[in-house]
Amino acid sequence: MASYNLECPIARTLDIVGERWTWLILRDLLLEGPRKFQDLESSLTGISPTTLSARLKTLEEQGIVERHVYEKNPPRSEYCLTDKGLELGPVLKALRDWGRRHAP
Amino acid sequence: MASYNLECPIARTLDIVGERWTWLILRDLLLEGPRKFQDLESSLTGISPTTLSARLKTLEEQGIVERHVYEKNPPRSEYCLTDKGLELGPVLKALRDWGRRHAP
Repeated sequence: MASYNLECPIARTLDIVGERWTWLILRDLLLEGPRKFQDLESSLTGISPTTLSARLKTLEEQGIVERHVYEKNPPRSEYCLTDKGLELGPVLKALRDWGRRHAP
Repeated sequence: MASYNLECPIARTLDIVGERWTWLILRDLLLEGPRKFQDLESSLTGISPTTLSARLKTLEEQGIVERHVYEKNPPRSEYCLTDKGLELGPVLKALRDWGRRHAP
């Protein structure tokens, strides 16, 4: 997404989290708490594993999502929001409020 | 964008306004008021005229943006937000606040 003019803070935010599916991944982690890859995959009907993987990788690199290994053998991990990720809550709330009102 | 599960109001909102560039078009109309096609094109560095045209068409069809013809000969028009569009303000504000804080 690197072709926006990044002088604007709105554009900078979108450059990090504006890709298709990202908001819905963040929604699941915010509303449901820690999720395994498979949980996200089955909740987000239509997403490909490759896309989900890429979005989670970006979110991890940006410090918005963390992966916790909760079992070593066999290896199992889950994703959760960092504080920086939790602070995207107001965006999701505003998207939800508008959708309830204008896209019933 | 029709493959999100539209039971969720966040997904319904994104289905309408979640495409690349759309938030930045809305930002310009919110912050600057009525804009001509050329104004938007020169503000949104990197957008193609075809994409801008397509985004504005979707926003008009969704009742978020209106086109006003302000001169008939030669024909000149400008785009502005409807009330429904103005109500996306809180989303833009939340995107801006997060960007200022976390994407300096």
